[in-house]
Amino acid sequence: MRILIANPNTTASMTEKAAAAARAVAAPGTEIIAATSKGGPASIEGHYDGAIAVPGLLMEIREGEAAGADAAIIACFDDTGLEAARTLADIPVLGLCESAVMTAAFLAQRFTVVTTLERSRVLIENLVRHYGMGDRAKVRAADIPVLELEDKASGALGKLERQIERALQEDGAEAIVLGCAGMADLARSLQRQYGVPVIDGVSAAVKQAEALVAQRLSTSKRGSYASPLSKAYTGAMGTFAPMRT
Amino acid sequence: MRILIANPNTTASMTEKAAAAARAVAAPGTEIIAATSKGGPASIEGHYDGAIAVPGLLMEIREGEAAGADAAIIACFDDTGLEAARTLADIPVLGLCESAVMTAAFLAQRFTVVTTLERSRVLIENLVRHYGMGDRAKVRAADIPVLELEDKASGALGKLERQIERALQEDGAEAIVLGCAGMADLARSLQRQYGVPVIDGVSAAVKQAEALVAQRLSTSKRGSYASPLSKAYTGAMGTFAPMRT
Amino acid sequence: MRILIANPNTTASMTEKAAAAARAVAAPGTEIIAATSKGGPASIEGHYDGAIAVPGLLMEIREGEAAGADAAIIACFDDTGLEAARTLADIPVLGLCESAVMTAAFLAQRFTVVTTLERSRVLIENLVRHYGMGDRAKVRAADIPVLELEDKASGALGKLERQIERALQEDGAEAIVLGCAGMADLARSLQRQYGVPVIDGVSAAVKQAEALVAQRLSTSKRGSYASPLSKAYTGAMGTFAPMRT
Amino acid sequence: MRILIANPNTTASMTEKAAAAARAVAAPGTEIIAATSKGGPASIEGHYDGAIAVPGLLMEIREGEAAGADAAIIACFDDTGLEAARTLADIPVLGLCESAVMTAAFLAQRFTVVTTLERSRVLIENLVRHYGMGDRAKVRAADIPVLELEDKASGALGKLERQIERALQEDGAEAIVLGCAGMADLARSLQRQYGVPVIDGVSAAVKQAEALVAQRLSTSKRGSYASPLSKAYTGAMGTFAPMRT
Amino acid sequence: MRILIANPNTTASMTEKAAAAARAVAAPGTEIIAATSKGGPASIEGHYDGAIAVPGLLMEIREGEAAGADAAIIACFDDTGLEAARTLADIPVLGLCESAVMTAAFLAQRFTVVTTLERSRVLIENLVRHYGMGDRAKVRAADIPVLELEDKASGALGKLERQIERALQEDGAEAIVLGCAGMADLARSLQRQYGVPVIDGVSAAVKQAEALVAQRLSTSKRGSYASPLSKAYTGAMGTFAPMRT
Amino acid sequence: MRILIANPNTTASMTEKAAAAARAVAAPGTEIIAATSKGGPASIEGHYDGAIAVPGLLMEIREGEAAGADAAIIACFDDTGLEAARTLADIPVLGLCESAVMTAAFLAQRFTVVTTLERSRVLIENLVRHYGMGDRAKVRAADIPVLELEDKASGALGKLERQIERALQEDGAEAIVLGCAGMADLARSLQRQYGVPVIDGVSAAVKQAEALVAQRLSTSKRGSYASPLSKAYTGAMGTFAPMRT
Repeated sequence: MRILIANPNTTASMTEKAAAAARAVAAPGTEIIAATSKGGPASIEGHYDGAIAVPGLLMEIREGEAAGADAAIIACFDDTGLEAARTLADIPVLGLCESAVMTAAFLAQRFTVVTTLERSRVLIENLVRHYGMGDRAKVRAADIPVLELEDKASGALGKLERQIERALQEDGAEAIVLGCAGMADLARSLQRQYGVPVIDGVSAAVKQAEALVAQRLSTSKRGSYASPLSKAYTGAMGTFAPMRT
Repeated sequence: MRILIANPNTTASMTEKAAAAARAVAAPGTEIIAATSKGGPASIEGHYDGAIAVPGLLMEIREGEAAGADAAIIACFDDTGLEAARTLADIPVLGLCESAVMTAAFLAQRFTVVTTLERSRVLIENLVRHYGMGDRAKVRAADIPVLELEDKASGALGKLERQIERALQEDGAEAIVLGCAGMADLARSLQRQYGVPVIDGVSAAVKQAEALVAQRLSTSKRGSYASPLSKAYTGAMGTFAPMRT
Repeated sequence: MRILIANPNTTASMTEKAAAAARAVAAPGTEIIAATSKGGPASIEGHYDGAIAVPGLLMEIREGEAAGADAAIIACFDDTGLEAARTLADIPVLGLCESAVMTAAFLAQRFTVVTTLERSRVLIENLVRHYGMGDRAKVRAADIPVLELEDKASGALGKLERQIERALQEDGAEAIVLGCAGMADLARSLQRQYGVPVIDGVSAAVKQAEALVAQRLSTSKRGSYASPLSKAYTGAMGTFAPMRT
Repeated sequence: MRILIANPNTTASMTEKAAAAARAVAAPGTEIIAATSKGGPASIEGHYDGAIAVPGLLMEIREGEAAGADAAIIACFDDTGLEAARTLADIPVLGLCESAVMTAAFLAQRFTVVTTLERSRVLIENLVRHYGMGDRAKVRAADIPVLELEDKASGALGKLERQIERALQEDGAEAIVLGCAGMADLARSLQRQYGVPVIDGVSAAVKQAEALVAQRLSTSKRGSYASPLSKAYTGAMGTFAPMRT
Repeated sequence: MRILIANPNTTASMTEKAAAAARAVAAPGTEIIAATSKGGPASIEGHYDGAIAVPGLLMEIREGEAAGADAAIIACFDDTGLEAARTLADIPVLGLCESAVMTAAFLAQRFTVVTTLERSRVLIENLVRHYGMGDRAKVRAADIPVLELEDKASGALGKLERQIERALQEDGAEAIVLGCAGMADLARSLQRQYGVPVIDGVSAAVKQAEALVAQRLSTSKRGSYASPLSKAYTGAMGTFAPMRT
Repeated sequence: MRILIANPNTTASMTEKAAAAARAVAAPGTEIIAATSKGGPASIEGHYDGAIAVPGLLMEIREGEAAGADAAIIACFDDTGLEAARTLADIPVLGLCESAVMTAAFLAQRFTVVTTLERSRVLIENLVRHYGMGDRAKVRAADIPVLELEDKASGALGKLERQIERALQEDGAEAIVLGCAGMADLARSLQRQYGVPVIDGVSAAVKQAEALVAQRLSTSKRGSYASPLSKAYTGAMGTFAPMRT
């Protein structure tokens, strides 16, 4: 089984961190293939970055599927482009936020997502509600620019810990979800430190991908995610035409 | 006051129809400027078309704002790219679905949106819920490919009428929302025909845009829609870097 | 176009303040007509005042419509009598709370309403939920008796500012809605002071009224707001019989 | 214990029917006092009738409380004036809709309210949601003008039966709530006929009133239902000033 | 009328306290019969205790019904076994949480439940949501082991008072619900102390039971609570076979 | 890795069917251990059967954990005893309904659960809502007694197919969830037949169990699922005392 980790931003070190987290939990027969977007923002912080990252992301998924991937993961906690990718691809596509909150729901009645910047907090809160967990989960921002997570000396970990502690004390959180792909390397040690489940979205998504493939399940092509209709795509976006002959 | 109607698809006849609907309701001092996307799909039918249309749309809005527009309207009922556009622009940005359902809410306790294709139905149902109208509104698809609305002989009107009739009889609808920019020319006659309010999203959005500008209100730049952060944008998306110097 | 501002309380200075706010945003061709209830409470603070204010309010709206008004606005943030007025009148009727929260929804994902007294707080919270914004908006009371807003020396502004500051810091508010018609004169300066959109209900309702009239839309008479049936009205309320011959 | 049945419409035969239903379920020591509004509409069909009925209703409740009633019931399924009455009175005040749906919730997971006219259907649906039962209850209208319920030859019973049958077959209803005070005499026989619980709002409210009085519980005067503040009430509504000396 | 108070734990002093509270509010003709579970946990603190208590509880209800009880009350605020008991019995069955929150809803727009341990807090929060009161009620835990309520010197009352005070100040609570059968003796004095309604679940359930019996209403046997089907029950649970011949 | 499939009913053929479905999707290194309850009902049809099945189920899980199981699955679609089992065990515990609807959510925006009997339909509908999928999923009953699924000649498959067809045509279902453990053998062929994803709860739960174990995640012991407190358990339930020495 081959699972594509598609990083929708252009920062290769984040791709590598996600790939490492993926490999740490992948089943013996699973091959993890990681791809970094070839064009777009260096990190995804808010709606604008997210929207512009989508075409590059979709191209990676299209190429990955053509190259034989059995499932694809969008390695950004905002689940940017998830619905478009499910429409485009025939293989299952997983988002980190969706995978992480569904995983947390098996472990705890109440949990808190800790993300990076305030500008992403409500965006993720809306996702969490859309996934049906609005009554069970809170979202906190730790005031960490995404790329600071790539720098151990940045103080990012301390900011993250402060929000986890507030989640446990003020939110009644029974588990913690790390709300950024760039935090994937921290889950295990934070779980030991706080004694509650700490969920990383990359790991969660890999296991969901394996689960779907093993069950021979893929995205429904009836209704919402029906394959794109054949039509003219022009201009700078001409290469994205859904049907190529 | 200048209001930009930005059509995120590349079909100029749809832009013209939306512009005509806009001009029909605009206040005397309002100038309607219409722009067609320079690159992307010929129509937006489902999540994939919608995602790929966004970069071209954002470029139109960026240019329109630079040229002095006081507000922008995204002329697609899926409200594609709305959140990204609000993040990018300093002027207010309006979506058709959001404007139409908010307008309907002043007129009726229960209403039905009639859109084109089944693949767009759940997408719009999710939007309607996100806008807080999930308990008041139903969504129906009339099985009309978007571009058939450009062809009077296509039978599209009959399909639309059948769904309006079912909405009135089965849904308890007290008003009807037309769920596609390409239906803008039909609202008045359908309102006369059925004796209930029939809301067109383009018209609704123009009046909401005028309303915000007259009140000197624009998108909050605190939190969700904070302006994009300065960062590297590379590859095919390099021209979308948020900070230009 | 003529828009009636119907103040459901009997305090003429509040009517004047509302009319001034209305005129400040009205389009060039819009005439604002203001009416003060001829009988009822001097201010509306809680459910009892609100209920007793309704007959006087409805009489103003009936007279205004007969005199040629194109739309009516109920100048109280509790939207008292709104549904009855929509049933009675053929012209559109707008409430301040409804208009303000719909307007805020175009500008911000999360916002806070700041109203006067604790006894009105839950009443408005219930309205906000009914309008579909319960997941996006919080409501705070500033402990200001309504008529203190008519007295610049009362300290009311300071109390209001304290709640706005708490909304920004504690609620994650991205915009502020002023939750009393008597605050209409403060919106512009508070918006400058805090750098976020500050919405006044009177202004919002005027623009919504203009929007509906321009679109030739009015309250649906199918279902919830069907015109009153002809029947006997007796006693002190005999003058309110819906059909007069 | 004395319980006031306050009929907010002016039709004495409906008052008598409600009083009879109340006496049939009242505990041995409970005295039922029935009052008909001295001024207002002959029946309550929709928002306008409901709003105009409130002042007369409140006067009955004020007088009943002064005369020693221990609790008051508003004998209309629309719960018109309920919040104002709770604000005014120190004794508990019960509505029929609220009492009936709370009672049904102890007996069935899913139930259907059958009311009179379509114009009342959404009004009651909104009440049911406000009382927290929106996920458990449906509302149907049987197309019966209220006063037809006073006429055995009107065919009203047949229309009611048809909707009960549809509720059982199409809604999965496990119990039925009769959605008009004028149906109080039909509950027992319909329960025998259909073999499911059939709840009458008058009966339910009487038992809730007795329950509260026996527990020495009354409306909270903290927050939403705080007693009306002393203030000027003028004009035709001058007699409603909250403070009497 | 005979009402069974079935204590699902094995602590007889709690049964007696509940029976005393029940007798204090019962109508003159109501006989209160109290039964303590013959097998199970000494107190119910969390999901595991609750699940294991159910078979003993159901046996008490089965015996009570056979002995002529007209209604049964499960004397635990977690409403453990409520749905199974309703399925088993033909007489009405009431839970404390359900009865208490429905009662509070007639008295206050917003209220807070104060329960014993944190491990029960979310369990009760989920019940409150299931009963439709999630938007109106908060739940607090006072950190009191259940059996400490049987010991006046334990300091439990002080802990309870602290949470009531926080509910009034921080939650905007207009009424308080005591969230444990073991608090039944405290309601009256706390109501005097804080000047807001304080609801005890045992008292509330007794009055609801009387209300249903007086209306000749019982659990619907259509759908969710249909009587158990005849089938083999084996092993240690063999005595629980639903059909006895 | 060893996963326990604990069948809470006493019918060994259903255990075997579930175990076969589990083995068909289990990863190479996963050992499936299946256990049938030693005491309780032969099938679980409604709340009563479900409640009585729990003690036997919990004993199987306790024994399975002691014998080295890494995760446990409750092989009944009602998720009976799930919360108690999570409280009792230190290993992850999965329910079929929870696992299946979470899996469906990755594949489709809208889906329908088809279960056996009407008496289970609302029970499952409530579970689906509790898991956050109430806005996305409908539940249908096919009128099949559970044990008929063990008999190929019973006509059960035809009844199931009829409901699947109605779900696709009337509900807008994009995927189907089979709502009974006894349907586990039918998923693959129904998926081929209808061309939409068909999810079996046993398969879904096995993959979720593997996913959690691989991520070193288990039930949070903070809050809702804290381990049972040490206390006296007496009578027939004495063997269930949570602390064993």
